[in-house]
Amino acid sequence: MTQYFPDVQKISYEGPDSTNPLAFKWYNPEEVVAGKSMREHLRFGVAYWHTFRGTGSDPFGAGTMPHPWAEAADPVTAAEQTVHAAFEFFSKLGVDFYCFHDRDIAPEANTLKQTNAILDRICGLAKQKQDETGIGLLWNTTNAFSHPRFANGASTNPDAAVFAYAASQIKKQLEIGKELGAANYVFWGGREGYATLLNTDMKREQEHLARLLQMAVDYAKKIGFEAQFLIEPKPKEPTKHQYDFDAASVISFLKGHGLDQHFKLNVEANHATLAMHSFEHDLQVASMHGMLGSIDANQGDLLLGWDTDEFPHNILEAAMAMRVVLAQGGIAPGGLNFDAKLRRESTDLKDLFIAHVSGMDTFALGLKIAAKMAADDFPNGFIRERYASYDSGIGAEIASGSADFESLEAYTLAHGEPVARSGKQELLEARLNQYLWQVR
Amino acid sequence: MTQYFPDVQKISYEGPDSTNPLAFKWYNPEEVVAGKSMREHLRFGVAYWHTFRGTGSDPFGAGTMPHPWAEAADPVTAAEQTVHAAFEFFSKLGVDFYCFHDRDIAPEANTLKQTNAILDRICGLAKQKQDETGIGLLWNTTNAFSHPRFANGASTNPDAAVFAYAASQIKKQLEIGKELGAANYVFWGGREGYATLLNTDMKREQEHLARLLQMAVDYAKKIGFEAQFLIEPKPKEPTKHQYDFDAASVISFLKGHGLDQHFKLNVEANHATLAMHSFEHDLQVASMHGMLGSIDANQGDLLLGWDTDEFPHNILEAAMAMRVVLAQGGIAPGGLNFDAKLRRESTDLKDLFIAHVSGMDTFALGLKIAAKMAADDFPNGFIRERYASYDSGIGAEIASGSADFESLEAYTLAHGEPVARSGKQELLEARLNQYLWQVR
Amino acid sequence: MTQYFPDVQKISYEGPDSTNPLAFKWYNPEEVVAGKSMREHLRFGVAYWHTFRGTGSDPFGAGTMPHPWAEAADPVTAAEQTVHAAFEFFSKLGVDFYCFHDRDIAPEANTLKQTNAILDRICGLAKQKQDETGIGLLWNTTNAFSHPRFANGASTNPDAAVFAYAASQIKKQLEIGKELGAANYVFWGGREGYATLLNTDMKREQEHLARLLQMAVDYAKKIGFEAQFLIEPKPKEPTKHQYDFDAASVISFLKGHGLDQHFKLNVEANHATLAMHSFEHDLQVASMHGMLGSIDANQGDLLLGWDTDEFPHNILEAAMAMRVVLAQGGIAPGGLNFDAKLRRESTDLKDLFIAHVSGMDTFALGLKIAAKMAADDFPNGFIRERYASYDSGIGAEIASGSADFESLEAYTLAHGEPVARSGKQELLEARLNQYLWQVR
Amino acid sequence: MTQYFPDVQKISYEGPDSTNPLAFKWYNPEEVVAGKSMREHLRFGVAYWHTFRGTGSDPFGAGTMPHPWAEAADPVTAAEQTVHAAFEFFSKLGVDFYCFHDRDIAPEANTLKQTNAILDRICGLAKQKQDETGIGLLWNTTNAFSHPRFANGASTNPDAAVFAYAASQIKKQLEIGKELGAANYVFWGGREGYATLLNTDMKREQEHLARLLQMAVDYAKKIGFEAQFLIEPKPKEPTKHQYDFDAASVISFLKGHGLDQHFKLNVEANHATLAMHSFEHDLQVASMHGMLGSIDANQGDLLLGWDTDEFPHNILEAAMAMRVVLAQGGIAPGGLNFDAKLRRESTDLKDLFIAHVSGMDTFALGLKIAAKMAADDFPNGFIRERYASYDSGIGAEIASGSADFESLEAYTLAHGEPVARSGKQELLEARLNQYLWQVR
Repeated sequence: MTQYFPDVQKISYEGPDSTNPLAFKWYNPEEVVAGKSMREHLRFGVAYWHTFRGTGSDPFGAGTMPHPWAEAADPVTAAEQTVHAAFEFFSKLGVDFYCFHDRDIAPEANTLKQTNAILDRICGLAKQKQDETGIGLLWNTTNAFSHPRFANGASTNPDAAVFAYAASQIKKQLEIGKELGAANYVFWGGREGYATLLNTDMKREQEHLARLLQMAVDYAKKIGFEAQFLIEPKPKEPTKHQYDFDAASVISFLKGHGLDQHFKLNVEANHATLAMHSFEHDLQVASMHGMLGSIDANQGDLLLGWDTDEFPHNILEAAMAMRVVLAQGGIAPGGLNFDAKLRRESTDLKDLFIAHVSGMDTFALGLKIAAKMAADDFPNGFIRERYASYDSGIGAEIASGSADFESLEAYTLAHGEPVARSGKQELLEARLNQYLWQVR
Repeated sequence: MTQYFPDVQKISYEGPDSTNPLAFKWYNPEEVVAGKSMREHLRFGVAYWHTFRGTGSDPFGAGTMPHPWAEAADPVTAAEQTVHAAFEFFSKLGVDFYCFHDRDIAPEANTLKQTNAILDRICGLAKQKQDETGIGLLWNTTNAFSHPRFANGASTNPDAAVFAYAASQIKKQLEIGKELGAANYVFWGGREGYATLLNTDMKREQEHLARLLQMAVDYAKKIGFEAQFLIEPKPKEPTKHQYDFDAASVISFLKGHGLDQHFKLNVEANHATLAMHSFEHDLQVASMHGMLGSIDANQGDLLLGWDTDEFPHNILEAAMAMRVVLAQGGIAPGGLNFDAKLRRESTDLKDLFIAHVSGMDTFALGLKIAAKMAADDFPNGFIRERYASYDSGIGAEIASGSADFESLEAYTLAHGEPVARSGKQELLEARLNQYLWQVR
Repeated sequence: MTQYFPDVQKISYEGPDSTNPLAFKWYNPEEVVAGKSMREHLRFGVAYWHTFRGTGSDPFGAGTMPHPWAEAADPVTAAEQTVHAAFEFFSKLGVDFYCFHDRDIAPEANTLKQTNAILDRICGLAKQKQDETGIGLLWNTTNAFSHPRFANGASTNPDAAVFAYAASQIKKQLEIGKELGAANYVFWGGREGYATLLNTDMKREQEHLARLLQMAVDYAKKIGFEAQFLIEPKPKEPTKHQYDFDAASVISFLKGHGLDQHFKLNVEANHATLAMHSFEHDLQVASMHGMLGSIDANQGDLLLGWDTDEFPHNILEAAMAMRVVLAQGGIAPGGLNFDAKLRRESTDLKDLFIAHVSGMDTFALGLKIAAKMAADDFPNGFIRERYASYDSGIGAEIASGSADFESLEAYTLAHGEPVARSGKQELLEARLNQYLWQVR
Repeated sequence: MTQYFPDVQKISYEGPDSTNPLAFKWYNPEEVVAGKSMREHLRFGVAYWHTFRGTGSDPFGAGTMPHPWAEAADPVTAAEQTVHAAFEFFSKLGVDFYCFHDRDIAPEANTLKQTNAILDRICGLAKQKQDETGIGLLWNTTNAFSHPRFANGASTNPDAAVFAYAASQIKKQLEIGKELGAANYVFWGGREGYATLLNTDMKREQEHLARLLQMAVDYAKKIGFEAQFLIEPKPKEPTKHQYDFDAASVISFLKGHGLDQHFKLNVEANHATLAMHSFEHDLQVASMHGMLGSIDANQGDLLLGWDTDEFPHNILEAAMAMRVVLAQGGIAPGGLNFDAKLRRESTDLKDLFIAHVSGMDTFALGLKIAAKMAADDFPNGFIRERYASYDSGIGAEIASGSADFESLEAYTLAHGEPVARSGKQELLEARLNQYLWQVR
């Protein structure tokens, strides 16, 4: 069988002193951390679109990256060869999952019917490769944003025929997800928003979006597709303003339409920062509502104003993310999908491995730090103690709802000025830095 | 009686060719626009804190502005003189409303009891001036963010004693609001957020915030204070991250805690843009949920990253705001409060008048443009027609919920590719510019 | 001859009450303003890349726009048909200039030699159309950023062979510019910067960039190409950090390498705002150094972090730009190039006309406002008077360099505290708004 | 003698496993790294303004921090006690330097003459403490931005009398600097910029600024004050737009006015990021021009739009800064001044020590990483090799200036398409992360 990465062997763990770019320094899949193997904690997935279909093009330039799997003149043949390349990549990298959009894995034909037939054929091959390798589908999703028909939105399009088209694509993807045993199904509304309020009925558009989500819930139930449904927030780009702005907005939307029992969130680091939140913040918001379902593990550049989708290499940021994950008891059935792409200047085929290895090492070390922090009760012990005044007395009355303004005024008149207490941010940050030293 | 602005007469309307800085060019209070006088539409309010207590200080420098009303050595006397100056200002400017925080209008003493006594005395004077002049209180609010005790939050403070203190202050303000006939009562949580998640229990803090709001609802009901309650979103500043980030976040929070029937929003232009939304966007979001209660009419500088609170002078932005207001049938019992301050370099006492006149003219012209747009059905007609496919056929089935994925797939298979239709943004923007010409 | 815009007639001036989207409301080319016709003042140019080669694609989606001129299978034939379409467009729109990159106007072939041969053929046709129509080339430029060979820079590439390639392209473009009588020649270094300092020798790269510019100066002199050379600043995008960050950076670079006598700046609105300056600011900086050579007239969206290249529709921003232009006695041999593109959702062929008409009207009205401001000595009179203390006495000694710290200390000890004087920003902003009313 | 920090002993090095917040984990002053002691490399300074005069106040709230040294009713007495507290702090912390503005160290009186007399008295005490302790003055500077007289600028003020006042203050500070043996003297132009171009003559203001700098050079020479002069760039805040925007702007300004031989730059991390550059970028720009003179070592929050002046705790950012410093052979006579303040919520007196310890540890570890990187020739070896094509052949001809467009075109025609070479960003970032592990 043709190998697309003949110079790359299966990536193995060599430890933090290794100088081999194609070896893990911290990710040791069977190593047990906090009672589970790293593999079970991290559930890494590879993003089909960036890794096999991303060319390095940007708005100012053409693609720069070699894609030996995409050289066939016939797009269906190329799609098949890409599946082979992908599973070779997954296997050599040692990840357990992958993710795709319908339009990544199979090309679009002239009619929906033909397109769906091609999709069935390619997904049949993917199923066979899954069975051969044991690699699973973390999630699939529908690309209802790239085709020109979606320029003005998919379910929020002013034209009902476009809504119908999007619905038809999603219907097919739910069927594909069931066929491939997808653990989750993601909705990212890249064009669900507006370019200008001068031509937009925001209320009507959001009602239509809710309709679509309800139909998806109904249809999944009908066909017995039991994947976790996920919505992925992003504030903007490509659209000027997107409705799924951030975790809080999405939760508001879901609650407002009675959909919150059927959906969780897929939180992406770079989308959170585009919304002016830290990654950790949006993870916490989602988790706090019991709605953190999965993670797009990447990293943005805060000095740039667009989604750079870098591979994660900020160790403490990964640690703070894993802290949220550990606190909620894990991320399954979700996982950590590398929604990340090589820099356009990274044009060696091996760079694909190097970048994923770096991302996996970053989160492996993040996991170890988060686990040690949890074992040390840091900073949780400090936090618990900080709020202890609500565990009894007037604080407990506040928390339980039995206090009222009159009882609180009486308390204040009796007790006078509260005593100042330092928030100790500098101390906590310094201590956090020590974990970089203490976890090895 | 001492006049604080002896050189300023009552501001009158002189029309757009006037070169008198102390005359209105567009605001003509009794002029009828779209069936109501400008005065009734716009319900302008002056912000006590900026106009009478703002000194022009910033983090790098001391105050620059003359405050002849604040020269008395005794702070209570100064507070009384400030009330006199304020009502002279309101009267000469010709606004119908004002707004204050407890700590603007009266100084804090050593104990809550003493502080409240002073507040009663000063508010008694304000009541008398209201009665004399017919000027009303648009809203009052509690400053639970400036005093060091609130460094780590008010209702979200880790110390229950601080929660109690904030509650005691708010209790008093509700009583004051009732006494002064406030039309609304505002909650702005300037310290309700966090500086670092390393020391914060976000979930617990938000539950406490909800408790406080519920207690306020209960106490207002108990004392018969029937003002509209308003929450004012702001994403950050002073706190690194504030819970009331934007309209969507606040609505999410209120719905999540069953409080949405008791609150509306006070949307501020500069707070919206700090959250990376346009002013119009956050107004639309609030209005669409039936929750736009009042407006803080100011303007930010999008090239700066903090709240500059400039007086509004962007005419089209004001027009788009008034478009939302007209569409929902008005802003009462809310109004347009100028939460705006002079630039630090504007050190003439008359600049206070000039800036308010400019803001009032901006919104007056904005109102006229919005009214003409409504009369022309612009852009509403365009928008309605753009979504017409949802008024019948498959679109109506989508909107009503009777369509499902199967019927939509059948539709798509039968109808094929939707026809592209231009969003016409450039045309709409060009037409909007013509209103600057057409409204005079 | 095939018409590409058969439904569009030559655009004519109909005045501000016209409801015809294909008519000018303010741009009246022969109308005399401040002693010159609008046409002479404004020197509008159309950008070949956006208008004829832009498809509406973005990083998340394919092109949406019809290009009837680009349907031929053979790219050279398509390029010829595009020239015909372009000159039909220019003529019907009534602009006097256009601008192009080598790779917009003619396709790249397998070798530089072949590519240059095609370029000669297409530019020969362009020359013929210029002669027929009287439309001139405002500037041409080299695209040394789109091809993968330039991924790591053109003249700043770590590979000297890429430098040589870029130089070869520019050499050809200088020859083409001479042939077509270009009034200016532009350098925009879209990849002249870095992605990470971990792989970059900034000093060496900037020295190479200076070498390239010097070679261009030398070669232009050698062949007798007398166009004004222009550098176009942009801080970022596509590259993470670009050396030509803003006007001040470019001026610094040019002075540091002794190149400032040979270059001026082409200032773009959206590039200025991406660098956190106002458009007016970067115009002023360039003009103040005698280095404002030409303008890319567009508009950004300050709530988005990337170059949106919108058609200009902010009238006061245009007025402030024209104020700088008038103050320096005009923009010739430069002009106002619409480096602007339709929104991706604007998919009618006529939208190309509508958007340009809107941009031209915006700057026409901006010109009229700036001219009236100049006639009124606004705000110049205010400004002159504000600095009057430097016209005599101690101020004149400071300005002339004859004062020193000792004489100034003596002055201060003798005169004490300076008198505060208001900057009057609110007054000036209000007065500026009146010009929207007063200019008709 | 009164101790202000009686509970704090001299901070000592305890190593990275220490849990003592008042001990160094990495800063071991006499430890030799790359041939010099840490102490010699790092030259830490404490900022008088933040540490002893900063109260924790912000635009929305009053100060929160205890200042036992500032309790005396008489401001001169308080200033003297503050000097005692400061030197106790410096000694216990173990820094070798401090920095101040005139208005931090001594209060302003009614006249310049009186103010200067107080300054002499307090600085006499400081001199005595310097002599006792061996602690030196890294730099002093003039506060010409806080007093209302400077609202419209100091040397760029439209009023020549304000220029004279600023000059008088700076004159005095140069004398003080000489007296105290300051190693450097800093100019930060917090109000040298503009609020609106509607009232500003930018050209005239910048000429005045240049005049002031020339006078300072002249006066220092006259009195024999040989400190290195430094300009500190900042793009904005408090002023809307500041002339000393970033390193490139300042260098441009200095070169344009023939002042570049007399000044270097004091680069601050948070100011660089407010200008949308990385800290490392502005350090490189300054260093590349031989103009990196000193560093303000702090850290910003890229999700906030203002100067947060946090104590540095990002280890890799510190490493990249120290990489620039090592590459230029050190920072002396400059140093690392902690222009950093406690979070407003950090209200324990000990937090001042904890935060400085954290910052010193961060830079100590950064130094060790940078030294190991240099020893490993990382990434320098990679970079040198990347540009090797300029060391010979056509590349050397480009670099030396002997190539021209014709020779380069001949080269390109002969050699064809350059070979793509990966920039390896992901590999370099992953390797950089390993240094966190490898340096201990």
